[in-house]
Amino acid sequence: MSGTDLENLMQLIAKLPGLGSRSSKRITLHLLKQKDSLMRPLADALQKAADSTLSCEICGNLDTISPCSICSDSRRDVTTICVVEEVADLWAFERSNMFKGKYHVLGGTLSALDGRMPKDLNISKLIERSSSSEVKEVIIATNATIEGQTTAHYINELLGDKGIIATKLAHGIPIGGELDYLDEGTIVAALKARSGF
Amino acid sequence: MSGTDLENLMQLIAKLPGLGSRSSKRITLHLLKQKDSLMRPLADALQKAADSTLSCEICGNLDTISPCSICSDSRRDVTTICVVEEVADLWAFERSNMFKGKYHVLGGTLSALDGRMPKDLNISKLIERSSSSEVKEVIIATNATIEGQTTAHYINELLGDKGIIATKLAHGIPIGGELDYLDEGTIVAALKARSGF
Repeated sequence: MSGTDLENLMQLIAKLPGLGSRSSKRITLHLLKQKDSLMRPLADALQKAADSTLSCEICGNLDTISPCSICSDSRRDVTTICVVEEVADLWAFERSNMFKGKYHVLGGTLSALDGRMPKDLNISKLIERSSSSEVKEVIIATNATIEGQTTAHYINELLGDKGIIATKLAHGIPIGGELDYLDEGTIVAALKARSGF
Repeated sequence: MSGTDLENLMQLIAKLPGLGSRSSKRITLHLLKQKDSLMRPLADALQKAADSTLSCEICGNLDTISPCSICSDSRRDVTTICVVEEVADLWAFERSNMFKGKYHVLGGTLSALDGRMPKDLNISKLIERSSSSEVKEVIIATNATIEGQTTAHYINELLGDKGIIATKLAHGIPIGGELDYLDEGTIVAALKARSGF
């Protein structure tokens, strides 16, 4: 069928999230058709990004510098820390262009099932940062999943012990959301939190 | 948001077939979490496969040797050549484990719209190979799309001029296919080609 190098490449591509053996094959053939314009540049880009990308020593964000460009940006509000599960969530907040404070990336959620304990997450650093007198509010923006909410409650208790104010994001109907497609939990939350026009 | 190396990597990944900017971001973060177990091996595998993979000088298949392992396999039947659009189609035939002849990879289809002319495909080589006295049958197995069929007709005429027998795959209901989900064209073809039990 093909050389070992090719099979090795297809196996690695198939490990990427959202891809399987069929899409891996398709991608591999696409790459081989464009060796110089895509395949070799991609190999270089992977190598370079692997070499240059650091995890920020303060917040856990990914950047080429540590502290990252957000932590070292003096124009950003140091009084508010937004706690997220992953770097992708941080990027989602940045896309919304609304939040001007600092971030803290946990690197996942607590999970009894998968054996992820508090020590496996970037939590002690968060408590330390939040204990600074500068910080006025910690927004715990973990996902609205069971694991995300368990993690949020755990962190909220730790912060409460230190007398630090924690807040959470509002639940409700997403903008553009159709009621018919929403789960009952969301509708109940939106109903409870209803407000006047 | 992130360093230039990271943005460059995400842009390249987003160019792969079936991926977009969102899945590219997800894949990039997944890779960065597994730098040594996945990201660097992938960069190496891409480099190696790009260096070692050749297009077979006889049939156009991809392999680490040229002539490829199929063309140089003396156990395979030299009297039959199966003509396919892409290497992926060749792999599909090999998976079925039914065809024991040789292949010829065109490298695409004719397309007036996209400006792909006969000279852009691996056609003249096919006519040359087929003209050998060893070859008894050429199976034209291009896709059952308009472009695939146009290409098949074009090649069939060229082969006919040389007195070479060309055949095509049967049309019909795919195994496991439900009639309700099939297009009318397939049902008409299956009906016309019906046979006794």
